[in-house]
Amino acid sequence: MPCSIARSLEVIGPWWALLIIRDTFMGVRRFKDFEKSLGIAKNTLTTRLNSLVDGGILERVPDPQGSKYLEYQLTGKGLELFPVIVALSQWGDKWAVHEDGPSFEIIDTRDGDPIPQQAIRGKDGLPIPREHLGQRPGPGTIAQREREGRA
Amino acid sequence: MPCSIARSLEVIGPWWALLIIRDTFMGVRRFKDFEKSLGIAKNTLTTRLNSLVDGGILERVPDPQGSKYLEYQLTGKGLELFPVIVALSQWGDKWAVHEDGPSFEIIDTRDGDPIPQQAIRGKDGLPIPREHLGQRPGPGTIAQREREGRA
Repeated sequence: MPCSIARSLEVIGPWWALLIIRDTFMGVRRFKDFEKSLGIAKNTLTTRLNSLVDGGILERVPDPQGSKYLEYQLTGKGLELFPVIVALSQWGDKWAVHEDGPSFEIIDTRDGDPIPQQAIRGKDGLPIPREHLGQRPGPGTIAQREREGRA
Repeated sequence: MPCSIARSLEVIGPWWALLIIRDTFMGVRRFKDFEKSLGIAKNTLTTRLNSLVDGGILERVPDPQGSKYLEYQLTGKGLELFPVIVALSQWGDKWAVHEDGPSFEIIDTRDGDPIPQQAIRGKDGLPIPREHLGQRPGPGTIAQREREGRA
């Protein structure tokens, strides 16, 4: 399937994977802290962390304080999932919020304020009005059509 | 769970839901076209479409050409998932791309060019450097801690 969305979902894995990635963005690094945050069984968590390590999203690193425990951190590939986390959390803050309000806020640490609602922006840096957002077949679809035409 | 990400994932549903939402953004509106695009069994597709209608993401509308078939369109709540689709597709274009290249490109219809790589932007409209992105507990976590403190 050449669709990048379908392929991303395959690499990131099921929904629970995004909750582990969220925790990692929030500073969780140790097995026991993931366990506490997610409230899942040790063997389930082990399988899930292994799957994210295998997918190149997380990597195991020695504890910088020198304990015998390994810690988990996002790879470069994993760090670049931050916009997915932001998009999901801003949508959820509006459309799926708990009665108590959001459990966390993503902030700009320079002023400590929550980041503003994000928009899809064009080359000029300005938000693109929804009616001007479109799509066209990419190289993957064109290659597929050519193969089908030849077959 | 007060986390907006966890709650969004609950509303949007499993991964397959995002592929239906992607198709809808790409202009698919009829049952038979979803079936063709997704390659899944009719009864599975029916269950999935019903679940997105129940979740308030899709709605059924009469065919504007007057046929007896209903069409599916995104609600306001569904349309606002566009940034999630963009974030996943840009990540996938970089980290999970097919050898043929992406299957589609999201474009600004005013110039027909693909939209640029999106960044997380601050109040001034400028990209926030990663080291300045942080998080803090939100009202949901504070309320929960207060309840636990009282218990």
